[in-house]
Amino acid sequence: MSRAYLDWNATAPLRAEARAAMIAAMDVVGNPSSVHGEGRAATAIIENARRDISAAIGASGADIVFTSGATEAAALALHGRTLSGFAGEHDCIDTWIIPDLTCDADGRVTVTNPAQSTVQTANSETGVLQDLPEGLALTDAVQAVGKVPFAFSWSGADMAILSAHKFGGPKGVGALVLRQGLDVDAILKGGGQEMSRRAGTENIIGIAGMAAALTAAIADMEAGVWDRVEKLRNILENALAEAAPDLIFFGKGARRLPNTSTFALPGWKGETQVMQMDLAGYAVSAGSACSSGKVGPSRVLKAMGADDVTAASAIRVSLGPSTTEDEIMGFVEAWTKQYRRHIARAA
Amino acid sequence: MSRAYLDWNATAPLRAEARAAMIAAMDVVGNPSSVHGEGRAATAIIENARRDISAAIGASGADIVFTSGATEAAALALHGRTLSGFAGEHDCIDTWIIPDLTCDADGRVTVTNPAQSTVQTANSETGVLQDLPEGLALTDAVQAVGKVPFAFSWSGADMAILSAHKFGGPKGVGALVLRQGLDVDAILKGGGQEMSRRAGTENIIGIAGMAAALTAAIADMEAGVWDRVEKLRNILENALAEAAPDLIFFGKGARRLPNTSTFALPGWKGETQVMQMDLAGYAVSAGSACSSGKVGPSRVLKAMGADDVTAASAIRVSLGPSTTEDEIMGFVEAWTKQYRRHIARAA
Repeated sequence: MSRAYLDWNATAPLRAEARAAMIAAMDVVGNPSSVHGEGRAATAIIENARRDISAAIGASGADIVFTSGATEAAALALHGRTLSGFAGEHDCIDTWIIPDLTCDADGRVTVTNPAQSTVQTANSETGVLQDLPEGLALTDAVQAVGKVPFAFSWSGADMAILSAHKFGGPKGVGALVLRQGLDVDAILKGGGQEMSRRAGTENIIGIAGMAAALTAAIADMEAGVWDRVEKLRNILENALAEAAPDLIFFGKGARRLPNTSTFALPGWKGETQVMQMDLAGYAVSAGSACSSGKVGPSRVLKAMGADDVTAASAIRVSLGPSTTEDEIMGFVEAWTKQYRRHIARAA
Repeated sequence: MSRAYLDWNATAPLRAEARAAMIAAMDVVGNPSSVHGEGRAATAIIENARRDISAAIGASGADIVFTSGATEAAALALHGRTLSGFAGEHDCIDTWIIPDLTCDADGRVTVTNPAQSTVQTANSETGVLQDLPEGLALTDAVQAVGKVPFAFSWSGADMAILSAHKFGGPKGVGALVLRQGLDVDAILKGGGQEMSRRAGTENIIGIAGMAAALTAAIADMEAGVWDRVEKLRNILENALAEAAPDLIFFGKGARRLPNTSTFALPGWKGETQVMQMDLAGYAVSAGSACSSGKVGPSRVLKAMGADDVTAASAIRVSLGPSTTEDEIMGFVEAWTKQYRRHIARAA
C-alpha cells in the first residue's frame, strides 16, 4: 500500500542536498579540534556551514552555536534563566519557563515584558504565527524557519533556536542563535569547542547536512513552493469542513504556517484518529511528535481555551513541498469514512 | 603529497559499515516519537542499534542512553554528583570532578573509594590502561572500546561513557551506559525520549552509524587487527629511541592501548613538532585533540610527574588498523630529520 506522509511538522524527509553534503562530509577524516591539515579540513566544514546558516536566516553579526538539536539549544538558552511564556510552547521550552502568558482563542500570545519572555515564531501544532515584540529574550523558530520568511536580525529576539530536521536536515543537530554580545553558560563542558559555549566534538556530518538543507529550503521558499502547499491545505480544510460541518479548526483566524491544519471533533479521540489514518496509509499526528507518546489533551489547544475533551480530540495534518492533491483528497476520503462511522457509533 | 593520518585517538576515519548504515538510515522519514508506521520504522533503527551496542560491549541488562557524544554522556553522569578522579582524565570528565586521585610514574591511578570515583579505562594521551575496581562509579571507556576487550558487565563500573567517532562511527553521537536500577537526572529536558533521561529527537543517522561501526570494530578486534598495530607501534618506538636516545616515552611500564605512543624531548615543544610533522605530511597531536587549541603543558603528563617543560614537549602518535609500516618508517624519518635540526639549533 502506498502511504502518504502528512506529518511534516514532526519531521521532514531528508533533502537531497543534505544527503549529498552529508555523504561528502563522511570523507573528512579529522577532528576539528586538531591543528593539522585533516583537522583544519573538518573545521572548514563547520565554519562554512555556520556562514551559510547565518546567511540563510539573516543572522549577520550574530553568533551561531551548534547543538544536538532544538532541545539542547533551548536548554542552553534557558538553564539558569527564568522566562515567561504561554502554556502552548514546545515541551523543550515549556520545561524551563513560567507559563503565565495568555493567548487569544486563535493562539496569539500577549507579551507584557519582552526581555523576560519567550515566544515561539510559529506553533508546532496549530501553525499560528506570532508577532514577535522587539527585545524578546528568546524565540523558538523551529517550525517557522524554511516555511515562512524569518530573519534573525529583524525578529526582535535576542536568541533563537533552530532544528535541522524540520527543514529537511538530519535529526540530532540544531543551533542556538545569539545576538552579538550576549552570552550563555555552557551545560556541556570540557573541550573548548564553539567558543567554550558547547563542548564536545562537533557533529560534522550533521552540521554539513543542516546547512545544505537550510540553504535549499530558503531557496525553495523564495521560489514560492509553499504557495502551492497553502492552497492544498485550504483545499483540505474546505473539504473536511464540508464533510463534517461541526469540525473545529484551530488558529484559523490568525496568520498561520502555510502547511499546518489542526482540527477536532469533540469526543472522537485524536489518538484513535491517528491510528485509523495510519492503518489507511496516512501519517498524521495528535499533538507534537515529542509528546505523542504521552496521554492527555494538548496543552496548546487548552491554552487557546479548548476544554479537555476537545483538546484530546484534535489531530494535526502538516504538509510539505512534495505533498500532492491526490494525497490530500485520499486523506479526506479516508478520514470522512471514519468520521461517518464515528458519528454512527456515537448516535 | 600523500599524507599519513597518525592521530586515531583524536578521531578515527568513518568505517565503511558505518557509512552504509548511515546512508540507509537517511531514507527513513519518520520521527521516532511518532506513533504511525513511519515513526515506528525510525524507532526500530534506534532500538536495533541499542541492542547491537549492548551486545558489542557486554552490557546485557544495562541501560544505554544515546547522547550527542562522550562530553554530553559525561555531563549526564556527573552533573549534580561529585566524584574523585586523577588530574589526567579527559577534559569532559575533569571539568566535573575533584582531581585528588594520584597515579604512579606510568600513569596507573590509585583508587581509594571506588563508589565515589571515576577512572578512565584507557588514557587518551598515553594509552595507559587502568585496572578498574569493583563498584567504580564511572569509567570513561571512550579510548578503550574497540581497541581492547571491554565488557561493561565485567568492568566493575556502574556507568560508562562511549564516543562513536573513536571507533569509526560518526562524530556527534555517543552513549551513557548505566547499570540497571541506576538513574540520572536529565539535563536536556522536554520530550520523553530515552525514557525521559535525555530529551530531543534522536540522531537516528548517527546512532545507526555508531552501532554499525562498533559491531565492525569488535569483530575486527576479535580477529586480531590490533596485534599488527601493536607491532607497528613498537617498531615506531624502537626506531625513535634509536634515533633519539634521550627521548622519554610515557606509560611504557604499564599496560597500554596497542596503538598509542606518547614521547617527549624536553625543550622541543610539542606544538612545534606537530606543525613540523603536519608540513611533512603526518597528522599527529600534542595532547588530546579537544585541548589542542589550548596553550599549556599536558595535565596527563604532569599528573604522571613530568615537569612543565617536559609535559609541554610531548607529542602523541596514535595508529589505526589501516596504518602501514611505510607510514611509520616515513614518520620516523621525517621526525628524525627535524630532531637533528632541533639538536643542532639547541647546541
